Amino acid sequence: MNFGPPAFVQEAAKHAIDQVESNQYSHPRGRIRLRNALAASYSPEFGRELNPETEIIVTAGANEAIFATFAGFLDEGSEVICMEPFFDQYIPNITMNGGKPVYVPLRAPADSSERTVSSHEWRLDIDELRSKITSKTKIIIINTPHNPIGKVFDEEELMAIGKVAEEHDLIILTDEVYDRLYYPPLKKFPRIASLANFWERTITVGSGGKSFAATGWRVGWLIGPEHLVKYSFAAQTRVVFCVNSPCQEAIAAGLEASLVKPIFQEQTDEYLKKRGILSAVFDKLKLPYTVPEGAYFILVNTAKISYPKDYKFPELLDSRGEDFKMCYWLTKEIGVCSIPPSEFYVKEHWPLAKDFARFAFCKTDDVLNEAVKRLEKLEQYIKK
Amino acid sequence: MNFGPPAFVQEAAKHAIDQVESNQYSHPRGRIRLRNALAASYSPEFGRELNPETEIIVTAGANEAIFATFAGFLDEGSEVICMEPFFDQYIPNITMNGGKPVYVPLRAPADSSERTVSSHEWRLDIDELRSKITSKTKIIIINTPHNPIGKVFDEEELMAIGKVAEEHDLIILTDEVYDRLYYPPLKKFPRIASLANFWERTITVGSGGKSFAATGWRVGWLIGPEHLVKYSFAAQTRVVFCVNSPCQEAIAAGLEASLVKPIFQEQTDEYLKKRGILSAVFDKLKLPYTVPEGAYFILVNTAKISYPKDYKFPELLDSRGEDFKMCYWLTKEIGVCSIPPSEFYVKEHWPLAKDFARFAFCKTDDVLNEAVKRLEKLEQYIKK
Ligand SMILES: Cc1ncc(COP(=O)(O)O)c(C=O)c1O
Ligand SMILES: Cc1ncc(COP(=O)(O)O)c(C=O)c1O
Repeated sequence: MNFGPPAFVQEAAKHAIDQVESNQYSHPRGRIRLRNALAASYSPEFGRELNPETEIIVTAGANEAIFATFAGFLDEGSEVICMEPFFDQYIPNITMNGGKPVYVPLRAPADSSERTVSSHEWRLDIDELRSKITSKTKIIIINTPHNPIGKVFDEEELMAIGKVAEEHDLIILTDEVYDRLYYPPLKKFPRIASLANFWERTITVGSGGKSFAATGWRVGWLIGPEHLVKYSFAAQTRVVFCVNSPCQEAIAAGLEASLVKPIFQEQTDEYLKKRGILSAVFDKLKLPYTVPEGAYFILVNTAKISYPKDYKFPELLDSRGEDFKMCYWLTKEIGVCSIPPSEFYVKEHWPLAKDFARFAFCKTDDVLNEAVKRLEKLEQYIKK
Repeated sequence: MNFGPPAFVQEAAKHAIDQVESNQYSHPRGRIRLRNALAASYSPEFGRELNPETEIIVTAGANEAIFATFAGFLDEGSEVICMEPFFDQYIPNITMNGGKPVYVPLRAPADSSERTVSSHEWRLDIDELRSKITSKTKIIIINTPHNPIGKVFDEEELMAIGKVAEEHDLIILTDEVYDRLYYPPLKKFPRIASLANFWERTITVGSGGKSFAATGWRVGWLIGPEHLVKYSFAAQTRVVFCVNSPCQEAIAAGLEASLVKPIFQEQTDEYLKKRGILSAVFDKLKLPYTVPEGAYFILVNTAKISYPKDYKFPELLDSRGEDFKMCYWLTKEIGVCSIPPSEFYVKEHWPLAKDFARFAFCKTDDVLNEAVKRLEKLEQYIKK
């Protein structure tokens, strides 16, 4: 993001810096003001009264929440089901803790290179998921809204996944860092922890950085039943001991405000406008893309773009997916940087990503408008 | 600590909160301003030009620096030599990463229950250390200034340890979080990384929280040769990704100021005064203690204190070291809280800690004076 947190949240951080206690160690579970604010904010979302003493742990970003959960649960050889494409940190977070990632694809519709699709059309095959489960499977990770696709899993999909988890007694780790960013026509963000009896087996991860445009504050959390989160907590106490104190106070202030003012709605409205600015240029260029239901990424199909055949790429790209070349050329020659999505696939599956580039619209409008202007230059490189 | 960071460091944090970039993700190695400030501050200390691009990694507190180093180096069954008493987090940090702690004692002088001793009289037996090394030993941890003893290892001791590490090709992990707090007559803080050729095998850990009275900011660092710190860095990028951005800027401002103003000297002077306030009451009570050469702890020998024989302790103390009872009673009845040092020993060695309590003098003078007043009430409980 090239913009800061809301001004009142910044003020709250500065106020916390002025207090003695909020510069010193916090309780390893998180500061009570933040845990109370999380309970107030998330209890209606989960449809249950969350206990800030036992069911909420503040973490050093969502990243460390995920690491600590794997550290708390995985044994040597435990398997974790990851949907591919996956947020790249999951894989080392699993392997560093002795686990083995097992992949199941999210598949784009067959004609996604021909037309713009909704992220909802990317599908998980439940039988394929079931086929990946072994006696060693311990956890299944869900990421909704999904990075890089933007998919928001609907209740039916979550019910199907949850039932598989129930059949095989798996823990569900649901990474919902973009939970405050989902777009119309969606009216409600479905959470697996609030469906059926899945609460009992689900750890939900959230991010203050994503919710309040403060990714550098490293404040995240995990929410779940005490019999699960106590293991993540035991690990996190040893890994980081506790989380940045003043920024916890500020995120608490942000959540408190969200209870009485529609700040997340306003933020969503802004992002929706940004999504519109960026996607318009791909429409104009007739480049098919995935319209995200949530988060702030657009996956663009770049197959129609042909860069000059004799273009010289640095050697280090030879060992990466084909999509690295396109993203490199776009950065160097068009002046717009995107992420090559093979980063979100295992090496064997890099070819699946070869025609994609992930653009982010978490930018101020002026930067987005400048990006659009530059991307318009692609016109001449597009195969008709 | 019940006081905050220096006012100008607080101002620097607030200034950083006001900037867009310093609220967003930082480079996983740390913000360049902080790495440059660390290089400027520590190069003279290490007697070599530190490279901020390759030899300095900013971490989420010293704690996470230590965790990431174990994560980066230990294999299943690797052994790590820990001097006992040890900072408690070391042990789970080792075992969570598949390692096995191996203990070697720091021994108090035989008559330390009779007289007040210097922390320097607590000794490591180098032959005993050597006897603990096996083909699986990978790392030896040093902690200087030492928590809870306050011992500052001198050059001769460090040379001896370094030679053992060299003989057996071990990595030295030196936890120097209290490096800015050592007391006269010490004129210089000896660092093993600056002796002989030990730099090549040493990772030095530091803490912004300890150096600038901001333990809740979770900014630490590690310094060492690229061929070592790259492994800690690889782990830390996956564990936390990066460190709180605005507080990195503020710690950088603090270090920059320390280059032109004697702020660490002034801080030491203050702590020395605090040490004097607290130790005076133990002198008065004729309770023997260890005079710390560094850090802000006083280990007091409590053998002469006798609490009422029929005092009712909560059941949960039954499963802890004997020192828990003394510390509990002191807290409840005298109104001064101390840490039972068996926390810093393995269970088999809890009896070694039974006559000690660790008091901390990182408190404002009014709190220390009040503690002294309360501790004076101990007079009536002291065996003559
Ligand atoms: C899907 C997903 N999970 C987790 C994270 C990490 O979030 P945080 O910055 O709170 O650690 C990200 C950040 O990009 C993400 O995209
Ligand atoms: C010896 C020692 N090492 C490391 C730490 C952790 O320091 P930080 O707060 O920077 O993680 C402490 C904190 O008490 C300590 O005493």
